[in-house]
Amino acid sequence: MNLYFAPLACSLATRIAFYEAGKDIHYTQVDLKAKRLADGTNYFRINPMGQVPALRTDDRKMLTENSAVLQFVGGLFPESGLVPADEIGRIQLARWLGFISTELHKTIFAPIFDGKAPEDVKAYARGKAPQRLDVLQNHLAGHEFLLDHFTVADAYLVTVLNWAASSNIDLREWPAVNEYHGRLLQRPSIAQAVREERQLYEQEQRAVSS
Amino acid sequence: MNLYFAPLACSLATRIAFYEAGKDIHYTQVDLKAKRLADGTNYFRINPMGQVPALRTDDRKMLTENSAVLQFVGGLFPESGLVPADEIGRIQLARWLGFISTELHKTIFAPIFDGKAPEDVKAYARGKAPQRLDVLQNHLAGHEFLLDHFTVADAYLVTVLNWAASSNIDLREWPAVNEYHGRLLQRPSIAQAVREERQLYEQEQRAVSS
Repeated sequence: MNLYFAPLACSLATRIAFYEAGKDIHYTQVDLKAKRLADGTNYFRINPMGQVPALRTDDRKMLTENSAVLQFVGGLFPESGLVPADEIGRIQLARWLGFISTELHKTIFAPIFDGKAPEDVKAYARGKAPQRLDVLQNHLAGHEFLLDHFTVADAYLVTVLNWAASSNIDLREWPAVNEYHGRLLQRPSIAQAVREERQLYEQEQRAVSS
Repeated sequence: MNLYFAPLACSLATRIAFYEAGKDIHYTQVDLKAKRLADGTNYFRINPMGQVPALRTDDRKMLTENSAVLQFVGGLFPESGLVPADEIGRIQLARWLGFISTELHKTIFAPIFDGKAPEDVKAYARGKAPQRLDVLQNHLAGHEFLLDHFTVADAYLVTVLNWAASSNIDLREWPAVNEYHGRLLQRPSIAQAVREERQLYEQEQRAVSS
């Protein structure tokens, strides 16, 4: 398998899932600004949306959309618990993947990180944060994870919460969310994935500014 | 079961799914502007996000997030094919539910229909439409449905495409998308659901203006 990723983008969640499962795969870095791979390949030819993650599976299919990629990867490792085995658990997983992808990722952070978005648009997106983080706060105040154990939804949530600091969103206003974020960053799979991608991110930033 | 819905909102997709399955349930209309039910109940007490759909299941659980609700409802009726039985089909369904919810619903239409969104924000959202409708056009030019048969993803997509006309998005620029939309509107379950909810929508509009 080959995961097309960009450092610290939402594809980090899929890397975390593979690290949790102890599965070694190939990773191909995408320059999301230029929409190119290191060898010059136009990334739109791999994913017409120009987004990461895209996962080339062992039978050479290309899978896109983070929620689907995460459910696929979790499903490859049933013993990992990354995707619940029971139907009710799978639906609750879909509920949180839906919430994270639509309400957090696309509503709040996608416009904030879009270099072409006007300031009005970023302010509008930031204004959507409190209600959504309140929902998370209420849930996480009573739960160690989104479901009753670590799943791919936690891998996605910690990835998205990483973006708060550079978005002028101070997670300390939502103490249970902040505690969850800090605690999950210490989980070995996540600590390793974040450390590695932070290095790649800093290399990318240096290349841009040099 | 009880579906909390608003006329022609994304909860229409769940109504379509129940009509496809021939299953009669209870429907409770939500005033999304006032965030109240007809009996005065504060809707935030039912769904803290204030959104539809919310589905109260037969065991009194409340399920939210459209993608999750649709996968749950489809799963109740395995013989309907609304959710594929095989794992690869389920992942492809998750891919399309992810695309529709994040790229179409939340990126394009949610800001356009937000009465509090500034004009800049609506214009930014509308500017996201062509790339996303191009992706759909390329897929639907070769496919009768999103997957190889009608699923809950089609119920969601037709619901979202209904919003194009009032968003200054002319689907005729994407002929396969436009053909798909027109064709699906004639499917009996969809024609009935749209006809009923259009009446409720018009009643709601008259109540607002009177």
